[in-house]
Amino acid sequence: MSKLLTVGTVAFDAIETPFGKTDKILGGSASYISLAAAQFSIDQGIVSVVGGDFPKEFLEKLNERNINTEAVEIIEDGKTFFWAGKYHNDLNSRDTLITDLNVLADFKPVVPENYQDCDFLLLGNLHPTVQMDVIKQIPIKPKLVALDTMNFWMDNTLDELMEVLKKVDVITINDEEARQLSGEYSLVKAAQKIYEMGPEYVVIKKGEHGALLFHEDNVFFAPALPLEEVFDPTGAGDTFAGGFIGHLAKTEDISFENMKRAVISGSNLASFCVEKFGTERMENLTHDEIQKRLLQFKLLTQFDIEIN
Amino acid sequence: MSKLLTVGTVAFDAIETPFGKTDKILGGSASYISLAAAQFSIDQGIVSVVGGDFPKEFLEKLNERNINTEAVEIIEDGKTFFWAGKYHNDLNSRDTLITDLNVLADFKPVVPENYQDCDFLLLGNLHPTVQMDVIKQIPIKPKLVALDTMNFWMDNTLDELMEVLKKVDVITINDEEARQLSGEYSLVKAAQKIYEMGPEYVVIKKGEHGALLFHEDNVFFAPALPLEEVFDPTGAGDTFAGGFIGHLAKTEDISFENMKRAVISGSNLASFCVEKFGTERMENLTHDEIQKRLLQFKLLTQFDIEIN
Repeated sequence: MSKLLTVGTVAFDAIETPFGKTDKILGGSASYISLAAAQFSIDQGIVSVVGGDFPKEFLEKLNERNINTEAVEIIEDGKTFFWAGKYHNDLNSRDTLITDLNVLADFKPVVPENYQDCDFLLLGNLHPTVQMDVIKQIPIKPKLVALDTMNFWMDNTLDELMEVLKKVDVITINDEEARQLSGEYSLVKAAQKIYEMGPEYVVIKKGEHGALLFHEDNVFFAPALPLEEVFDPTGAGDTFAGGFIGHLAKTEDISFENMKRAVISGSNLASFCVEKFGTERMENLTHDEIQKRLLQFKLLTQFDIEIN
Repeated sequence: MSKLLTVGTVAFDAIETPFGKTDKILGGSASYISLAAAQFSIDQGIVSVVGGDFPKEFLEKLNERNINTEAVEIIEDGKTFFWAGKYHNDLNSRDTLITDLNVLADFKPVVPENYQDCDFLLLGNLHPTVQMDVIKQIPIKPKLVALDTMNFWMDNTLDELMEVLKKVDVITINDEEARQLSGEYSLVKAAQKIYEMGPEYVVIKKGEHGALLFHEDNVFFAPALPLEEVFDPTGAGDTFAGGFIGHLAKTEDISFENMKRAVISGSNLASFCVEKFGTERMENLTHDEIQKRLLQFKLLTQFDIEIN
């Protein structure tokens, strides 16, 4: 069974959408990623940090799904990272109301011994020096290292980001970030420039417009499933990443053909994530629901045209 | 051989993009639609109007591709419809600099006798009463009637548009227009509302984000091909529509499975259209280039995932 290690945030989120609002609920990139990857039979652990205020029940939600949280450090006299945001009516944009880094400000990740031999490593969206710190603690390069990042790190810590990019196989970013990082408007050209920075695979997330996978001269596109209702987009990108790496870890196959399936798996899980607030939908997702929706993805995209 | 009749504009366009600018070149919805549909072995004619200033060579470009222009009325003492626009740097938005309706202002379409028995009818983006006028001149309902429209007609002639929608099978509009017409943000819900207005098939064009085809509970998605360079997006939507209806007319098959292929054919031709100014690329397109790019569409979208 493949080992997947994810480094990311475990946090409190407070979310407001046109359909309602939540109190402090389970959030953070590592939570969404691991809940998505938990849909696959793998051995997975997360490295993160929370404060003494973090409810045991939240970690238990993860443990119940075979997510090892022993390396989630608990700083008893600290407070958990807290993000609050409010979505606009179209759900495509949001205002961040609160970002209290709290214990995350001094996060020193420690990779536990039993995951130092992980096969797959996912570096969630964090300070690039934290991401690099994790890579350095893993003596033998995993089969695949994936990294998620965002414009904030490009704006503020570009040199550090460029250093860590040299060490990764896959980068996942959104279309605007790909343009910012590469200086190219065309996503085809952007991917080519990003290859030169290190990653051999570039995954560009376009939200409701789907996701693109680039590798050498190959491109694959997975649409987002058109939904009647989107309730809360929070965590969709991390859920996509978790489904992507979870599929790869389970199948232990990093061929381009299998990466296509991984992108579809990620898109599939993300389509569920947005149906309820926070992680709620991902906590109550069945194998049958997932399989049924994979069939919808096939119907949505597959065609049979004669080429002569 | 199927007969396709297209009603639309034949015009002068003057286009400015970040890569250069043109003088008055061949433009108009009927020009783009018919040049795309000309890639298929069909009998096609267009109904339109131009002024005495319109060069014979422009109509000859169409005739050379077996496009019957006998029903393009020439008003000798009138001037041809003229549109000038300037694209912004991202090519996703543009400013209209000039819209001189000229002879289009009093356009009274006359469907020639030899196309009154057309099998396929495409009503290009025009005043809904002009579109209705054409429908009334066709004694037996064609196999398929498709209509293109835009927000301008929704804003100014909604009642007339709703009347003509009752008579059509397929509507092609962009995502914002689908939302405006239906009052629904979700495109799934928008399509359902639009079914009730008449069309059984709803094609939603999302530009660089692809196109969606809705019919009953079925949805199909065709991405736009990711390109290294987009040179001039003018006419891409009309080229898509021309490829869509051209494929249907050639195959004489309006099943949903075949409509999927039609959407891919339209997307494929549109990907060429944007590579050069105006209609230039469409005038110099070979069968082999089209087939080669269809293969790229397959590689871009087709995957093989086990569902259990």
